[in-house]
This record gives sequence, structure tokens and C-alpha cells, in this order.
Amino acid sequence: MSTHEVIFYPDQRSVRVPTGTSLLKAAARAGIALKSNCGGNGTCGKCAVKVKQGEANIESFGNLPARLKKEGYVLACQTYVQGNLEVEIPPEAQLRDHQVLVDYKQAVLTERRQRGPEGFPLCYQVQLELSSPTLTENSSDLTRLEAAVYQKTGKRDWDISLAVLRELPEILRTGQWKVQVTLVEVPGRREIVKVVPTGKAVTPYGLAVDIGTTTVVVHLVNLETGQIVDRNGTYNRQAQFGDDVISRIIYASEEKEGLEELRESVVQTINELTEDLLKRNGVPREDVHLAVCAGNTTMTHLFMGILPKYIRLEPYIPAFSRIPPVKVSQVGLKINPEGWVLNFPAVASYVGGDIVAGVLVSGIADSEEIALFVDIGTNGEMVLGNKDWLVSCACSAGPAFEGGGITWGMRAMPGAIERLEIEPETFEVKVITVGDGKPVGICGSGLIDTLAKLRRYGIIDRSGNFERDLSTPRLREKDGEWEFVLVWSRESGNGEDIVITQSDIKNILRAKAAVFAGIRSLLKAVQLEMDQVQKVIIAGGFGNYLNIADAVEIGLLPDLPEERYEFIGNSAVKGAYLSLISQEAWQEAHELAKKMTYLELSVGTDFMEEFVSASFLPHTDLSLFPSLVHAVSGKEGNTHWTAAGN
Amino acid sequence: MSTHEVIFYPDQRSVRVPTGTSLLKAAARAGIALKSNCGGNGTCGKCAVKVKQGEANIESFGNLPARLKKEGYVLACQTYVQGNLEVEIPPEAQLRDHQVLVDYKQAVLTERRQRGPEGFPLCYQVQLELSSPTLTENSSDLTRLEAAVYQKTGKRDWDISLAVLRELPEILRTGQWKVQVTLVEVPGRREIVKVVPTGKAVTPYGLAVDIGTTTVVVHLVNLETGQIVDRNGTYNRQAQFGDDVISRIIYASEEKEGLEELRESVVQTINELTEDLLKRNGVPREDVHLAVCAGNTTMTHLFMGILPKYIRLEPYIPAFSRIPPVKVSQVGLKINPEGWVLNFPAVASYVGGDIVAGVLVSGIADSEEIALFVDIGTNGEMVLGNKDWLVSCACSAGPAFEGGGITWGMRAMPGAIERLEIEPETFEVKVITVGDGKPVGICGSGLIDTLAKLRRYGIIDRSGNFERDLSTPRLREKDGEWEFVLVWSRESGNGEDIVITQSDIKNILRAKAAVFAGIRSLLKAVQLEMDQVQKVIIAGGFGNYLNIADAVEIGLLPDLPEERYEFIGNSAVKGAYLSLISQEAWQEAHELAKKMTYLELSVGTDFMEEFVSASFLPHTDLSLFPSLVHAVSGKEGNTHWTAAGN
Repeated sequence: MSTHEVIFYPDQRSVRVPTGTSLLKAAARAGIALKSNCGGNGTCGKCAVKVKQGEANIESFGNLPARLKKEGYVLACQTYVQGNLEVEIPPEAQLRDHQVLVDYKQAVLTERRQRGPEGFPLCYQVQLELSSPTLTENSSDLTRLEAAVYQKTGKRDWDISLAVLRELPEILRTGQWKVQVTLVEVPGRREIVKVVPTGKAVTPYGLAVDIGTTTVVVHLVNLETGQIVDRNGTYNRQAQFGDDVISRIIYASEEKEGLEELRESVVQTINELTEDLLKRNGVPREDVHLAVCAGNTTMTHLFMGILPKYIRLEPYIPAFSRIPPVKVSQVGLKINPEGWVLNFPAVASYVGGDIVAGVLVSGIADSEEIALFVDIGTNGEMVLGNKDWLVSCACSAGPAFEGGGITWGMRAMPGAIERLEIEPETFEVKVITVGDGKPVGICGSGLIDTLAKLRRYGIIDRSGNFERDLSTPRLREKDGEWEFVLVWSRESGNGEDIVITQSDIKNILRAKAAVFAGIRSLLKAVQLEMDQVQKVIIAGGFGNYLNIADAVEIGLLPDLPEERYEFIGNSAVKGAYLSLISQEAWQEAHELAKKMTYLELSVGTDFMEEFVSASFLPHTDLSLFPSLVHAVSGKEGNTHWTAAGN
Repeated sequence: MSTHEVIFYPDQRSVRVPTGTSLLKAAARAGIALKSNCGGNGTCGKCAVKVKQGEANIESFGNLPARLKKEGYVLACQTYVQGNLEVEIPPEAQLRDHQVLVDYKQAVLTERRQRGPEGFPLCYQVQLELSSPTLTENSSDLTRLEAAVYQKTGKRDWDISLAVLRELPEILRTGQWKVQVTLVEVPGRREIVKVVPTGKAVTPYGLAVDIGTTTVVVHLVNLETGQIVDRNGTYNRQAQFGDDVISRIIYASEEKEGLEELRESVVQTINELTEDLLKRNGVPREDVHLAVCAGNTTMTHLFMGILPKYIRLEPYIPAFSRIPPVKVSQVGLKINPEGWVLNFPAVASYVGGDIVAGVLVSGIADSEEIALFVDIGTNGEMVLGNKDWLVSCACSAGPAFEGGGITWGMRAMPGAIERLEIEPETFEVKVITVGDGKPVGICGSGLIDTLAKLRRYGIIDRSGNFERDLSTPRLREKDGEWEFVLVWSRESGNGEDIVITQSDIKNILRAKAAVFAGIRSLLKAVQLEMDQVQKVIIAGGFGNYLNIADAVEIGLLPDLPEERYEFIGNSAVKGAYLSLISQEAWQEAHELAKKMTYLELSVGTDFMEEFVSASFLPHTDLSLFPSLVHAVSGKEGNTHWTAAGN
């Protein structure tokens, strides 16, 4: 089969792939993650790219928005390589990952891997040639195998499961004493997990799993090459028992069989994603020996079937933060039952393994410069520090940024308003939706933008209250509550007016105040000023859609130059991936977890004071937002903005 | 409840026990193992003792032989302490254990235990007082527990099973942070296996298991005190699939489900013994966390469900010799499913963990002096050496010594002829049977005695052939084969003549020749002469009934002064017991297994030559039996004996 070179612009990354490879897969092989919510089925319309030169076979345009089709775009997942190609990737199609950091981290690990075994994946294969036994050299099959593994790896004391040992005598003899051996090596556990005759095509695979409260993401990783073979993600089936960790803890604690229902739900979620991944990539279940999982502390407890009851009760103590490796068969994942499940260590009840994984990938602990890592979801988790110290905290932002508790709130799915413009004079609104379809609701980034624009054009005051005397039909009182119409029913996708209400605004205000107060509390704890933060890393799916200027404008994020902001995407799954392919990264994750001091915000009154001060737009203390005072007063002369202090 | 002192003679060992304790149990507590084949039910009549002074309650005389009852004996298992007692133990009631050695070994371990933790049992309990968590000292339950365990033991990296972790949060809080923690500590495995609130009466127990081809013995051990609480034994249920290891290997290899049937059989055997032990001692299953098992290599393979196919085929390679600890739940033992099963390491296919356990207990590797360890069963296993070196071998003795392949052969059960006397002039025979009942067959020791006496009184020649011209009706030809009548039908317990035939004699000759040739081969391999062996240790149930003078007379055992011989009884279960109560002993067992060189007798012609030379009574080379030549020629002037050389 002939191969072709595909060059991706603007990064000019090139890769050689066989005829018939989809551009989505080719991009992945080149290390570029395209948005692909539907997993390459052509239905989400996200992976739009432009073929600049060369021959490609466009199988379908799927749900590619008509506007893009007209401009010459194709769907990467539906377009197949036929010859050498040059492909342009528009910024909106690329996952706004903190790819540079990840690449750097990976490059460091790759280099170390060449230097020595500490950069080995947590699971790897070695080729062995055993001496064949004689009457005078008659040590047991296992002893012979162990000696050869020792000779190859320099390491002793390998465990072996009964299942593998049961097959060993026949395999050694079938392979005429030449075998491929798959090893799992994590601190405190060395195990021979598979032995096959040399020449049999067997590749060890692993799963990198992000167990989010809302969504679960699984990457299938080829541990021989270190490449991500495929990705898959879906909603966490636990959601049926409650949206956030607190409601799940209550369900687990108070319902009979509640814990087991939640455990089964998340296991089923991971299993469905995994089965799908294995099927579409033709990988046999028994070749997957390892799952490295990153979840918040409650998710990890539920996944392990351990009641997270005391996470919710003062003084908020988890049952465990670091859990030893657990056999796959005990967890019920549908991979090799003799494999191992590893969970990222947590820092505290509300700073979990997902954050440790994120900090690992972010590299903030590798550098002298002081950086802030922020993951905004239902909970906001933040880590501040550098290579010498790290301090972390968590605050409850509530579900507003994920669309929860908001009249027309929704997740970032097709039809969700993600950006909008308001005409300053007429208050006419122009919205941009995910997938370009008719609007049916507002997602988190849309809500932030809405709040920023409502404030910018004087529709709400600094406290978030509507300026009721504005003369526009969009501002109205209905059923005793004031609201602003963003989309009239005739333009909406569901035949209803899409509005933002006074309580919606208060909910978003509380959410953003909690996050900002958390950041301020961290800084205060280490006696640093905001502008000493050299880098802000935004993690989580939310970050993919977040407009920094908007977020700063409403006082959600610190007023720092935009170039200090970086996006890292789903850093939990990336951390899991990095650990899967590097023992050193896994070791580092454990050191990070130990190093990260946890600041309990409910101790003392500092956080509460910060929260109250942050419950304004953008903040009580305008000196914290110097660029806004300048920009707003300069650009729009809006008197509300000039009132410093208050 | 009041306690009383019981002094056992002749050893003058004393013990304090509560009113109502059986003398059998009291003796066990004093470290004296009485014969008790029936397990204390009064049916075997073996544990006869005499109360010299004091008050005891004789519940029944069970099957105590009438002769002994007349002489004032009682059954220890049916006699209960009522006050201070002095009890005489006749030599025949005491298991002829190598008790001095075992005691010495145990004393050494006890002393080391006081010096430091290496003498700890493989499973032990610690009392911990954890600091209670606060908002500022909010580490997880497990982290807190691990820190306390570390503080107590100085050791880190403890595993914990999901099952234990699941209970942890409630137990810590119920116990108000004061807990008793049970730890399992074996090389390569440290695990927290139980946590209960302080004050709750919980004792960790373990099982010492001897998995014999014929019989399985289980000791229940209190790991807190190190005492053997109770013992139990029965036939290995695998026997239904074949008497010896070879027939079981064939069954496992050739029958569909054969391996699984054999695995289940032995597990069921151990489970039945264990359930009985737990029930009668009121020990809950979940308090037993460990089973240390010693079996020959084939038995260990079958127990682990691993096909021992290649043990039987040249070059005789086992699948494993050392196997890592296995979870109880994987094996199916009915003790705590989260506990561990440990198997003694083997040396080779035919020198298994039972022999390593025996060598451990024998202490031959602790001394400068050269000793020989011999375990005679269907296979004869021998180990020669001292603290600097050990060499081992195995030979197939065949089932003759266990009564197999012998016309009237039987195991050492009631009615088995175990000793006999022949009147030199009249050839009249007087037999002594196990249990003193009417004779129904001949056991191994009886066969050896028979052969010795037949030879001594000239009834057979040096090749084992009958002297057909002897004039006695006992020597006769029947159905074409010559035989000698030991018991006439009118005196036997089954109404038939009990005879020994020419082929029986040849079978015994072959068996004894194999053992002696094995011993000679070991000596030859290290270039030592017989009389350089300072000590001969006889292990195995067979040893309990063996008369050394007889065994030397037929050339089964070397012609060494009788004081060099010692009996060690069931050294496999004793080794398992020692390891259970001492990490150091377990470690030592592994070092021993590595240290023991294996001499494969099928290499070269030495063994075969030795075998041929040993197939005479006592041997071709009479210079190897100087005491016999002297004794026989002196006492009886039998010309056959004086013919040195062949």
C-alpha cells in the first residue's frame, strides 16, 4: 500500500499515511487534535478543514454547515487521502489545546525514554529468547522466564497471575522458547501480564480515562508507539442520579444500593466507550492491560465503589487520596481482566486526580515562573505555584457555567448560543451558535458573553440588576421577574423567546465570584499580587469555548494580558495519557499530589470576604481590573465603568 | 474459671489449662503432639496416656485397646482436667517427632522476634491511635492510617484491598480513630488486611497446610500467640483420580476437565478440614488471613490449577518453582477471601515445597555437621548437606512402602501388621498390629520387618528368593507363585491367610534399592563416604512407624549408629507452621530452595548402577553394612552373610 505525505497548515506539521486514511486520523497522527464531538461520524460538523493542494476523496459533507461548504471546506472525518496533500486547518476546527505545553512535556519524556528505562510506558513489551531446558539445566518455566526478563530489564520480583502462568508451559514450547512478554511496571507492582510466542502480532494497549462528573472521555493508546489510536467520549451515566458531585454523594449515601448503582453507571459508561473504541479499531479486549484514570475525588470513590460520604461533611475527608493499583477484574472494566486500573492520586476531597493530571500536563511545576491553573466546571479548582511550591483550592461555582440553573441554559451542543453581539443603540442582538443552527439555548461561554455585553451596553448595573428604565421591548417583566430577550421566538429553533432572567444573572454572578474569590484567596495565602502571575492555564472542556476578554470583563478571570492565558483542553485525559506512556510521568503525578498544599477555603473568613467583593461586575475593587477601567471609559465612556472604588 | 497445672512425663513439661480441657489439648499446649489419627474422637485409640496423680474426668475409653485399659491407660482425648495432674505419656502415644529440633528452631525464632520485627509472623496485628482530622489537617482516611502504620512498623507502601477500604471510613469513626489493624507482610507484598475498632476482640489466624499426595493436614494457628490451636487431617480427595503423582498428572493432562477436577478436589479437601477446625474452635472464617501450604511440586501445581504436564516428560520441567502470593478468592479456600495463599518454593519437579519445608524445620542447613534428610513415600526424596551446601535428589520408590502393589499391603491402619517375630527353628510367626486388633494386612513398617526377619532366619536368600527347600507349611507354592504365610486364616481378621509372595518381596526390594541408591548417588556427587554423615533425619508419616534396625538390616537405610537417626514426623506441615509465625523462616525457606542443588538421577548411569547393587539384601557391597556382617555372622553364623562382595 502506498503512502502519501500530508502537510497541515498553519503548523506545517507533516505526516506519512497510507492511501485511504481519513484527514481526521492523519491530523491525529500529526499530533493535531481536531474538534470531533461525534467521533468521526460526520454528524457534528466540527472538523472542517480545507484541502489546499493534492488529491482527496470526499465521501460526504455530513453536517458541515452550508456556509463553510460554500467556502470550500470539507469534513476531515469524511475526506480520505489519495495522494500527497496540503491541508489548511482553521483555528475553530482545532481543539484549542495547550498543545505546545503537551508537546514539550512529551518531548521531554521521549528524550528521557531514549536515555533510560524510566521513560518507559507503564506497560511495555520485551522480546526474549530463553535457553531451552535440559536434564542438567532444569529450572522451572517461570524461573527461566523471570531470569530472561531480569536480563532484559535489570529488574527482579515480577508477579504473574495464575491465568498467565497457566498458559506459560504451552506458550514457551510453542514459541520454541522465543517469546514476547508484556510487562506492567508501576511503583509497588511489577507484573508479567502476557506471554505469547515471538512473531505473533500482539501490541499492548492502554486506556487513558477522564472520569468527569458530566462527561467521560476515553483514549485508546498504542503503548508500543505511544500514539493515541482513537478517542471517544460521552455523558457520564451517573448523571441520571444527580448533576453534581454533592447530589451523587447524597444519592450514594442515602439510597439503598445507591453506591452500587453509581459505581455500575460509571463502569458501564467507560465500558461502552471502550467497546466502541476497540471495535472500530479492531483491537482485542485482551490486549488492553491498563487503564489510567483521572477523576475528581468523588468520581474516583464512586468508580472504586467506595462511599464518599465524608467528603461532604466537615472536615471533608475522603476515604483515600492515593489508592494502590486495582485488578481490572475487581473493577469490572471490559479489558483484559488480569490488567490493572490505576487512579490518579488526589490532593483533597475537592482537588482530585483530574487536577493533579492537569497540573502534570500543564508543566507549571517544571518552571520557575509562577503560574495559575484553573479548571472551571461545577466546581472551580485552582492551583497556583511553580517548580518549588504549589497551593491549591476548590470552590463551588455551581452548575451555571454548564448551563445548570439557568432558564435557557444548556451545554455546548448544536444550537447553543456561544457568542453574541448587541447593537449599543437599538439593543438588537446577533447570536452565533454551536454548529451554526437556529438557537435553542445558551451555553457557558454564551452566558459569560451575554453578561459582558449586557454590562458593557448598560443593560445591567454593576450589581447585575437590570436598568429597568431602558426603552427596548427586549427588556420586560414577566410573571413578576425581569428578563432580557436574546432571541425572539420567530428566530429561535424551538419557537420560543430565549431570554436571560434576573435570577440567571445572579446565578452567573455567584459562580464567577466564587472562582475569582478562590483565585484571590490562593494569592493571598502566598502573599502574591495578581500581576505576579506569569501564566494562566485554563483547563476543562469549558475552556475550549471561553472568550478570555469576556471572562475578564465580567470579573471571572484576572485582568492580565491575554498572552499570559493558555488553554489546555481536557488536561485530565492528557495527564492520564502521559502517565500511560511514561513511568516517570506517573511517578511525577504522585510527587505533585504530595507537593500540592490544599487551602481549605471554609477555614477563616477570607474567602467569604473575597466572594462578596467579587459579586459585582467586574469587582468591588476596580483597581484589580485596570485594563477594563481604561478600555471601557476610553471606548464607550460609560459612566458606570469610571466609578472606581465603591 | 479456675486453671490447673498439668505436668507431662517423661519430658516434665507443664502447662496451665482451664477445668475441662482434654488431656489431648493440654498436651498440645505443652508442645507435645500425641498420636491422634481420628482427630480426638476416641475412635483411633492412639492417644493412650496414664494419669499418675490428680483428678481427671474420664468420659469414655473409646477404642482404647483392652490390654492398655487393663494397664491403667486412658484416652487423652476423652479425659478432662479437673485439678492439678501428673500424666505419663508412653513413647508409643507420642508422635515420634523431631521435637528437639523443632523446639530449637522455634526458640531461635522466638529470640529473634524479641530482637526485631523480622521474627514477626507473616500476618500480625497492631494497635493504632490515629489523630482525628480537622479542616486544616484533612488528609484522607487511608493516608492517616498508612501514616500510623508506618509510625508503628517503620514500613511504607502497604496495599489495601477495595473490600477493606470500603469499610474504612465507618470503622475509623466508630472506633473514634483507635483501631486494630491486621497486616500481612511477605516478601513483595505488604497489605492491610483488616481494620476494626480497638477493643473488638479479633485475633488473626493462619493455616499451615501440608498437601500430601495421599493425605492433607491442616493446622489452625493463632498468629497472636503463635500457638497451634488445633490440627486436622484426612485423605486427599484427589486419590480417587490416581494414587500417585504420575497417575494424577496423566489424569490432569488427558481427561477433559481433569485438571479442574483435581484442583477442586484438593481445595475441597482443605476446605472440609478447615471448616471443621474453625467450627470446633469457634474461629470465624474472616479472621483467617493466610494459608501457608507445603506440597510436592505436582500437588502445588494442581492446587494452583496449573497443568503439571511437563513434570512427567523429560527433561522434567515444572511450570514454576516459586509462585508469588495468590489471593484466597482466586484459589477458593474458605477463609477470608481477601487473604493470601502462600506456597512453599520447590527445588525441582520431584523435590518440592514439602521437602524445602522439611529441610527448614530439620535445621540441617543451620549446622556445620553433615546431615541427610530422607522422606520416604511413593517417591523418596533426599537432601544431603550442611549450612554451606545442600544437594537433593528424588527417586521413585513405588507404592510398596505405603502398601501399594503388595498382595496384603495396606496403610498403617488398625489391623495392619507393623512388627513381627519369627521363631528361628519352627518358623512360627507372632505379629503386632496397629491398634492390637486381629491382623488384616501388612503396612510399610511391617513389610520392612517381614523382609528383615525372612532374611535373618534364612527363609529368603540375598536376592530375595525363597529358600524353597525349607520344611515348613508356611512356605508354599500357590497358583504358580511361591509365598510365605504370616498369619493363618483362623487367626486373621478377615478369615484368610495373610501371606507375602515372591513378587511382593521383589517389589519391596526395588523400593528399598531405589532409596538406598538415591542416598549413595548424593554421597557420590559430593564425594563423601557414608560414615561422614553425622545425622540422618527421617521425615514423613512413614517414619513414625519405621524401625531403624529393620530398615538397616534390609539395606534401605545406611548402616550408621542408631543414635545418628532422628525422626521429624510431618515436617511439611511443621515448616508451614514455622513460616506462618515467622517472616524470617519464610525468607529462609526461599533461600534454602535456591541453595538446594538438584541432582537429576536419570543423567548418567551412576544411579542405575547403584540401584542394581542395592537390589540385594542388604547390598552387593557388604562393606557398606559393617555392623550387619559382624552382628549376623556373630549371632547367627548364617553363611549367606559372610559372603562379602557378591
